[in-house]
Amino acid sequence: MTIEEFRKHGHETVDWIADYYSTIEKLPVKSRVQPGEIFSQIPDSPPDKAEAYSTILEDLNTKIIPGMTHWQHPNFHAYFPGNSSFPSLLGEMVTSALAAQCMVWDTSPAAAELEEKMMLWLKQMMNLPKSWHGVIQDTASTGTLVALLSARENTSRHDINLNGFGERKFRVYCSSQTHSSIDKAVKIAGIGISNLVKIDTDQNLAMDVKHLKQSIMKDIDQGFTPCAVVSTLGTTGTMAMDPVPEIAEVCREFGIWHHVDAAYVGSAFLLPEYQHYTKGFETVDSYLFNPHKWMFTNFDCSAYFVRDRDCLIKTFEILPEYLKTRSRGKVNDYRDWGIQLGRRFRALKLWFVIRDFGVSGLQSKMRQHIGFSEWIEDKINDHSDFEMVVPRIMNMVVFRYCPGNIDPDHYDKLNEQLLDRINQSGSAYLTHTKVSGNYVIRLVTAQTYLEWKHVENVWKVIVEESEKIL
Amino acid sequence: MTIEEFRKHGHETVDWIADYYSTIEKLPVKSRVQPGEIFSQIPDSPPDKAEAYSTILEDLNTKIIPGMTHWQHPNFHAYFPGNSSFPSLLGEMVTSALAAQCMVWDTSPAAAELEEKMMLWLKQMMNLPKSWHGVIQDTASTGTLVALLSARENTSRHDINLNGFGERKFRVYCSSQTHSSIDKAVKIAGIGISNLVKIDTDQNLAMDVKHLKQSIMKDIDQGFTPCAVVSTLGTTGTMAMDPVPEIAEVCREFGIWHHVDAAYVGSAFLLPEYQHYTKGFETVDSYLFNPHKWMFTNFDCSAYFVRDRDCLIKTFEILPEYLKTRSRGKVNDYRDWGIQLGRRFRALKLWFVIRDFGVSGLQSKMRQHIGFSEWIEDKINDHSDFEMVVPRIMNMVVFRYCPGNIDPDHYDKLNEQLLDRINQSGSAYLTHTKVSGNYVIRLVTAQTYLEWKHVENVWKVIVEESEKIL
Repeated sequence: MTIEEFRKHGHETVDWIADYYSTIEKLPVKSRVQPGEIFSQIPDSPPDKAEAYSTILEDLNTKIIPGMTHWQHPNFHAYFPGNSSFPSLLGEMVTSALAAQCMVWDTSPAAAELEEKMMLWLKQMMNLPKSWHGVIQDTASTGTLVALLSARENTSRHDINLNGFGERKFRVYCSSQTHSSIDKAVKIAGIGISNLVKIDTDQNLAMDVKHLKQSIMKDIDQGFTPCAVVSTLGTTGTMAMDPVPEIAEVCREFGIWHHVDAAYVGSAFLLPEYQHYTKGFETVDSYLFNPHKWMFTNFDCSAYFVRDRDCLIKTFEILPEYLKTRSRGKVNDYRDWGIQLGRRFRALKLWFVIRDFGVSGLQSKMRQHIGFSEWIEDKINDHSDFEMVVPRIMNMVVFRYCPGNIDPDHYDKLNEQLLDRINQSGSAYLTHTKVSGNYVIRLVTAQTYLEWKHVENVWKVIVEESEKIL
Repeated sequence: MTIEEFRKHGHETVDWIADYYSTIEKLPVKSRVQPGEIFSQIPDSPPDKAEAYSTILEDLNTKIIPGMTHWQHPNFHAYFPGNSSFPSLLGEMVTSALAAQCMVWDTSPAAAELEEKMMLWLKQMMNLPKSWHGVIQDTASTGTLVALLSARENTSRHDINLNGFGERKFRVYCSSQTHSSIDKAVKIAGIGISNLVKIDTDQNLAMDVKHLKQSIMKDIDQGFTPCAVVSTLGTTGTMAMDPVPEIAEVCREFGIWHHVDAAYVGSAFLLPEYQHYTKGFETVDSYLFNPHKWMFTNFDCSAYFVRDRDCLIKTFEILPEYLKTRSRGKVNDYRDWGIQLGRRFRALKLWFVIRDFGVSGLQSKMRQHIGFSEWIEDKINDHSDFEMVVPRIMNMVVFRYCPGNIDPDHYDKLNEQLLDRINQSGSAYLTHTKVSGNYVIRLVTAQTYLEWKHVENVWKVIVEESEKIL
């Protein structure tokens, strides 16, 4: 493909993308294909000769699109979203074109310095502690692992890095509602999942600080070394908020690393009315949130902040001959700030998004999203056959179908059926969780291009499908 | 930004990209900016109001581009390349537009199934063992870590995942020429860098298998448990090739996990004339190579293969309520095949690249690249003031400037000066390594759009700059 052929096909692809977004509402949100259906349509062998781009685009339409769950469909209310936006898309196009390896400053100075500046912007926009140092990780899974490894090395004074675990018995604490990425990180870090202590939660599903303190003291008595506490702001199941200031107090008392995971909800700290949640952040050791969840920035983009930059770097630093550069020590070489050596120029899409929306544009979209959930909450409360399972926090509602004429023992099965019907309808995609052992439905209103008509539509679908069950 | 505004700006951005590639040769390959120069040009605060896209694009040109090192410049011969290509770029555009989270099959069936098929294509194209299972990781750093974690769990029968390290003393082996990502992975996995045994190399800088075996036996005697051996095909410094079949034999004898890192050179196994390097792969436990290095596929895209899929999955599996899906067990849920839960739809760009080039198109480009290095090797051998430091392997030459009238004690300084002059000239970008303690220059001819004129140019620059030193 020559440059001019690329220009032509690039224009075709931009049109393909614009058309995709123009017609996305006609597509079923959740793919209806069966296992193996797509696989069997792709030839078993690669072509020996070059194929025309028109053929590839045609196959994209006929073979791939039917197998996609459309994460950018306005009625995608499942999990947490992986938000894209048009300026973010344009930023990613430029990143792909520059295709720079941003491992060290020397290999792409602008990428390193724009990343540093964007992290300052985010701190300012969200009123995060000025003393924090920011870096972009790919995902919250990676950021969580980076946090636990830093905690591990901080606790062992970097001796595990050097000599391995030895006979240390570390313990990590999080609530029973915490995201599975903590479990995974504890495994990877060699701490062992049986040393991840799941702390009880209160009636709001937030961490019970008294139980945390008891657990820590008991562990110390039994010869364990507390290594880290992970607080969550906005749990995946129900958006529960752990009491960060109180947890911070306990961590300070016992000298334990405190990581705060605000993967989804952190974007909301753009709104002054939610910044009270950042109380206690001054003594937090590490913190992350994902602009790719609710700040309209393409996956992957996880903003990670630490108080002690030197500890972070010492945890990951390596310096082989072929990576020595003259600028070392004067600049940020971000390959030492995380797991991967190779890094994409992710700061660029953040820059595009923040400038294209403006801070006030981001804020008003988020406030609109919260208003959507508020409206659905009202509908649920007004409907005798539905109930809110936990109080709404921001733009997520957790509810269940509970018709009075049915034995409550059947509610789990009923809600599973309802969820299945909604998702099979193609009109919306929601997911479930369990609260106090009950099967319940979660609905997030956070899609970049979500409008009132879509919100009204999803409520209509929920009610209609519930009426069809009985 | 509305859809129609996106369409307009998308076309502008495609033109920007095409123009960038049309004029890239006029830009200095390595950025000439000083630390802080870009940072100071970006406002300290984010804009409150939305900005026009034309302003953003203008700032891209005036503020970012001067600070970029142009990895896609044909005369980028540094490190290993991070190759892009036009079909790959188009694939990335579509991936960004779909913006699907490919964590489990349910959230994007087509992504999971295309990934499975692409891994089959790669196995077929490169004559890799049919029994292997493939998955796309982001980088070789991640793939290496995944391999060592799998080895760790395999050795401990998944007890470390569960209970932590305990008193185990594991050892990992690699040659002294191995990439720093192994050091990093050994630290992260909790094994400790003092337990990474660097095996001597022979005159070709390949692992000395006799020394490997001695080290393993000595460690066993001293109470250590050998956990993994990492072989490298194509070391970063000099493209040295470890003797995989002999190492595989040792690993089999002692029951040790054998990981093969062919991050750069693996792409060359597309060429039947290099497939003899895959001898011994049948008993290899894990293997990776990066299509983003020399297979014209945008970073990030690392192809990772394992023999024992169950061990891989058992190492990373987690199953919280909100991630339970009906299809589980019938499909590949790739979030259990690596570290991150969130995953981009990376298979798409591979599909675009392989189809647009065709296998024969990929092969002929690679053969051309090897021919370029062959030509430079001849030039070096024909020039009395230069010498090849190690025999050329494929498309990398490692050489130094060694004028007869200068005391060899000054060669290190001289080559450092020469490299600096070449890179400062803006005409080419090369990097260095050390061989037997000597400072030497590496030159890779692997850029997607590298042509004869660029190859002649880099040799001209090398000679001219060398003549200016004295």
